[in-house]
Amino acid sequence: MTSRTCLSIILAAGEGTRMKSSLPKVLHRVAGLEMVAHVINAARAAGSDALSVVIGHGAETVRAAIEKRYGTGALSFFVQEKQLGTANAVLAAREAIARGHDDVLVMFGDTPLIDADALLAMRAALAQGAAVAVMGFRTENPTGYGRLIEKDGSLVAIREEKDCTDDERRIRFCNGGIMAIAGRHALALLDQVGNENAKGEYYLTDIVEIAVRQGLAVRAVEASFENALGVNNRVELAQAEAIWQGRRREQLMREGVTMIAPETVFLSFDTEIGPDTVIEPNVFFGPGVKVGAGVTIHAFCHFEQATISAGAEIGPYARLRPGAEIQNKAKIGNFVEVKKSVVEVGAKVNHLSYIGDTTVGTKANIGAGTITCNYDGFNKHRTVIGPGAFVGSNSSLVAPVTIGAGAYVGSGSVVTKDVPDDALAVARGRQVNLEGRGKALRERLAREKEEKTNAAGKK
Amino acid sequence: MTSRTCLSIILAAGEGTRMKSSLPKVLHRVAGLEMVAHVINAARAAGSDALSVVIGHGAETVRAAIEKRYGTGALSFFVQEKQLGTANAVLAAREAIARGHDDVLVMFGDTPLIDADALLAMRAALAQGAAVAVMGFRTENPTGYGRLIEKDGSLVAIREEKDCTDDERRIRFCNGGIMAIAGRHALALLDQVGNENAKGEYYLTDIVEIAVRQGLAVRAVEASFENALGVNNRVELAQAEAIWQGRRREQLMREGVTMIAPETVFLSFDTEIGPDTVIEPNVFFGPGVKVGAGVTIHAFCHFEQATISAGAEIGPYARLRPGAEIQNKAKIGNFVEVKKSVVEVGAKVNHLSYIGDTTVGTKANIGAGTITCNYDGFNKHRTVIGPGAFVGSNSSLVAPVTIGAGAYVGSGSVVTKDVPDDALAVARGRQVNLEGRGKALRERLAREKEEKTNAAGKK
Amino acid sequence: MTSRTCLSIILAAGEGTRMKSSLPKVLHRVAGLEMVAHVINAARAAGSDALSVVIGHGAETVRAAIEKRYGTGALSFFVQEKQLGTANAVLAAREAIARGHDDVLVMFGDTPLIDADALLAMRAALAQGAAVAVMGFRTENPTGYGRLIEKDGSLVAIREEKDCTDDERRIRFCNGGIMAIAGRHALALLDQVGNENAKGEYYLTDIVEIAVRQGLAVRAVEASFENALGVNNRVELAQAEAIWQGRRREQLMREGVTMIAPETVFLSFDTEIGPDTVIEPNVFFGPGVKVGAGVTIHAFCHFEQATISAGAEIGPYARLRPGAEIQNKAKIGNFVEVKKSVVEVGAKVNHLSYIGDTTVGTKANIGAGTITCNYDGFNKHRTVIGPGAFVGSNSSLVAPVTIGAGAYVGSGSVVTKDVPDDALAVARGRQVNLEGRGKALRERLAREKEEKTNAAGKK
Repeated sequence: MTSRTCLSIILAAGEGTRMKSSLPKVLHRVAGLEMVAHVINAARAAGSDALSVVIGHGAETVRAAIEKRYGTGALSFFVQEKQLGTANAVLAAREAIARGHDDVLVMFGDTPLIDADALLAMRAALAQGAAVAVMGFRTENPTGYGRLIEKDGSLVAIREEKDCTDDERRIRFCNGGIMAIAGRHALALLDQVGNENAKGEYYLTDIVEIAVRQGLAVRAVEASFENALGVNNRVELAQAEAIWQGRRREQLMREGVTMIAPETVFLSFDTEIGPDTVIEPNVFFGPGVKVGAGVTIHAFCHFEQATISAGAEIGPYARLRPGAEIQNKAKIGNFVEVKKSVVEVGAKVNHLSYIGDTTVGTKANIGAGTITCNYDGFNKHRTVIGPGAFVGSNSSLVAPVTIGAGAYVGSGSVVTKDVPDDALAVARGRQVNLEGRGKALRERLAREKEEKTNAAGKK
Repeated sequence: MTSRTCLSIILAAGEGTRMKSSLPKVLHRVAGLEMVAHVINAARAAGSDALSVVIGHGAETVRAAIEKRYGTGALSFFVQEKQLGTANAVLAAREAIARGHDDVLVMFGDTPLIDADALLAMRAALAQGAAVAVMGFRTENPTGYGRLIEKDGSLVAIREEKDCTDDERRIRFCNGGIMAIAGRHALALLDQVGNENAKGEYYLTDIVEIAVRQGLAVRAVEASFENALGVNNRVELAQAEAIWQGRRREQLMREGVTMIAPETVFLSFDTEIGPDTVIEPNVFFGPGVKVGAGVTIHAFCHFEQATISAGAEIGPYARLRPGAEIQNKAKIGNFVEVKKSVVEVGAKVNHLSYIGDTTVGTKANIGAGTITCNYDGFNKHRTVIGPGAFVGSNSSLVAPVTIGAGAYVGSGSVVTKDVPDDALAVARGRQVNLEGRGKALRERLAREKEEKTNAAGKK
Repeated sequence: MTSRTCLSIILAAGEGTRMKSSLPKVLHRVAGLEMVAHVINAARAAGSDALSVVIGHGAETVRAAIEKRYGTGALSFFVQEKQLGTANAVLAAREAIARGHDDVLVMFGDTPLIDADALLAMRAALAQGAAVAVMGFRTENPTGYGRLIEKDGSLVAIREEKDCTDDERRIRFCNGGIMAIAGRHALALLDQVGNENAKGEYYLTDIVEIAVRQGLAVRAVEASFENALGVNNRVELAQAEAIWQGRRREQLMREGVTMIAPETVFLSFDTEIGPDTVIEPNVFFGPGVKVGAGVTIHAFCHFEQATISAGAEIGPYARLRPGAEIQNKAKIGNFVEVKKSVVEVGAKVNHLSYIGDTTVGTKANIGAGTITCNYDGFNKHRTVIGPGAFVGSNSSLVAPVTIGAGAYVGSGSVVTKDVPDDALAVARGRQVNLEGRGKALRERLAREKEEKTNAAGKK
């Protein structure tokens, strides 16, 4: 990475009416992360040492969401009062630009697939002497895009489709919108942008011709189309998501993760998965999930903020919620929910259980249908199950409660008091068999049903 | 819509052998609705005031299914005794045609993607003076389709591929099968159709040339290919389903619904979803589901005849069955089934529960693993849980039973008697801890297992 | 099939470093079956009476996996000590070739989509007099593949891309790698292969030119590309899986199975499904599953080594594990796991249950939340539920235990002793209602929470 300093300005003031949402557009998510955060992350990865976000519609909501993720003070915010065009938006951050960075990058908060490499290539163009660098992409079908008019390797203009000559219209190298400006020229160039056009707006693209007129070097830097993909409605949001998912799945597979049906595995921006892990179809990774090597993940699992260590076996139908930590070779089976709990090495929770605020000790076995009763309506309480303990099926463990190491809880027990190490606890009613009474009951119920049906018929 | 009267005749007599099914072809479903009902709905939406269905194979089954959906008497049925071609099929409805409607539309029961707009365009052609209007579609690859031969804006013939000249074979405007006939000409035209052809059948397409010969105006009306897409086997059924789903998903997204992975969300013909509702991957909407605005639907949910109101949070792994009504801001969590029950405002059923024939009062909290025991083998009984009640985890509520407002049920209780408002109910066995007996039991079981293994080895 | 004898040699010695796996490449699975087993099955289906596998990297692991599936002695194994090229690999099986089969087929262990028909066509070429037959495929984009150079219907050479003339480079008929050699020429041809090339390896493809030079007949046999599709990394593994799944789904749909969304139904190599069975989206079939006719399978099911008979209704969210046998018209509902159990005709297990090592008798009804407690930490025990029995919701059946025919178990019972036929068993605690104590408890808990919050605030 270069030693040049860099300010990234992210434009995030637009309304996004076509999203039809009460949530500001740039806060809609791709891979579990707000679009604007994808852009911020790319800007950071491209070496930005200062980041400014220009906000407008939903300004406070956008600012709060970004500060929640990156902390207060990590980025500076500028409000664009009226939406008078992209150059006007950039100038809202005049104070930041005036601090004098070597490079100024201008990005949009609704292009979640932007990549640090493309930004670095633009910064490299500045380092090589360009005053302005414009990201361009090539496409088979350029209709509707502004064309990048080059001459002798330099960019001379960005021409809107309607202003193109026939020859220019055939150009398939298009304006991707993202721009890099040499810091020492930035304010001068931006201040020269006028608004003598149909809409009366100040367009950032105008700085290309301004710079060319002044004899400054201007370059187009090619990148893939995805870098410029702006999201304007929820169909495009889903398309961006699909592209993101496809890329990340392929990356993980190349690194040694097996996905039987990759198109059914949904990852988050920060999902980590180790090699030789096998993932059956239909698995959903919410944010904050780390999976070790050699893990088996059966179909229909749902994870969020959870850790799964090497050799564990999970699912099908396992839900790991925030704070679930599944250690080596532990097993979480079907219809099991684990929240804020540690399931230690080799322990098993195989069927129909809720494990919340609990430690399940090494090699403990939790029977089918076991429920940790961790909530009294006001507070959450902890359950501690010792190593090697055996909790019989359909037990209720009423927290706070401790089941000692090697203890044994009889099936169907409601455990309200601690069970000492190695003890046997039983807490259930006595069984009474009433001979013939099942038959009698069945006959009575059948009779009543018949009477009810008859009565209903008579009405 | 026009003031002209309209009879729609839907041909639904075919056998559909390639479906390899005991169910008549037109009753196979797309988006949860029988194919023939899609066609009936389009005919209705296009302003048909009379509807006739021509039945044959599986006649009674088809009739019963249609009458179940639309009521008896809403449509008239005519039986085509022998399958002697499409013109013969239409004439089975002679009695209906003879009643003298302005427009007669002829459709097929196996084209589930037919659209009211295409039908209205055909009716418009009749209104503008055409005696016959034929639906046509354009395709890159017309091989196998009859070509629409036009001259001076009029349709002059429908030519089967095998009868085409080389020039005609290059035509890519093809016969979509659907036809509109001016009512006052209909019977006369149909009665002139002959069967002097290889198969000895009466073809509806022949009326084009008959009308042309008589100097009547005949027009082709272009529509998209999907309108004509006939389903002949289950591969094509799946293709029609995929097209239908893709369209409806896009529509909902444009209206403000977020689908992280739209291709994994399956909708029914009557699914309604409000704006700013977010749907995670893999959600199945059976018929009869209405979802309000701002609802969060996590992955792996399954709904049928259920209502979810604004701000509710559902799933993952929630199953809402017929009669489930989830009110504002209520929460239904994982591995929870709700049937014929109201979960009132702000109430929570978060984990591993079965709620049937129940009212869960406002802000009540139902603990993990709670089961309403609503069935005695003969009758279903109701459970009423008052506002603000707290039902401890793993409880069984044996219906009919009432848990009073603000009442508190201890975890693991089997509640068989009503609990008064604000009371505390506990119904479980007493816990006994036997010191050292867990260890002793474990040692005995281990010993027995070893003996068994040894015994097995000796055999 | 021909009466000629056939030896198939499967090359499975390669390392497969791009898989990034500790598992040898040929043991990675497609449709639940190791890739090499797909190849073995195709070889068998093409009439091979002898099968040799050439192993190298991970030799013992590969051999063990194959012997586990096919039994010891069913195939012979030869170790290629050093990876000196494909001809060298084939010659590792010299001893098998020397036994003198009419046909020798050479295949690769990493081409899971190879088809018996393609192999039979190659054998047919030998039967018609060819000494060598090479499988070829046609492709729009041949870049990178060896071209098959034909003259007068005979194959004269396999030319690597880099050695091609411009004319040859335009050939789109490419080498698929698989080869058939007349047994009586095999060793003589293979022994003439030299290693005078850049890598110093012995290439099997060289026998084409050797045979041509000797005036032997050599033929190319066309097959589809998939036959030659080699898997080198997990992206390609997923692609092979997708092709396999697509084919098998289509086949089943054509045979009368409805799949609402076929792309979400995952089948195994041996899955069998009867006609008029309807499958909702998102169903996973592991190995060993047989489904009868007219079965309804709701969404989100997961099956492995299970049988489902005609007219049964399964799911959503049903997991059938090894040994589950669901008989005619039985019902398995949501969040239900069945393992090593028979659910007899018309019986119902509808909600949130674990049924393990159990017989559920005809028409028995198992209430929601019922758990069979089949495991004591060491041994599994059986539960027997008689015909017509009614097990109340949330019951625990502690095995070994028998519920008699027509018996009735009260909801929430923990059944530890056998229940006689027609008896009523109740095993639960007595309910105590403490008036006003729910309110008092709530107030106390609220107060405690407030105090805790205050205390936390002061720290």
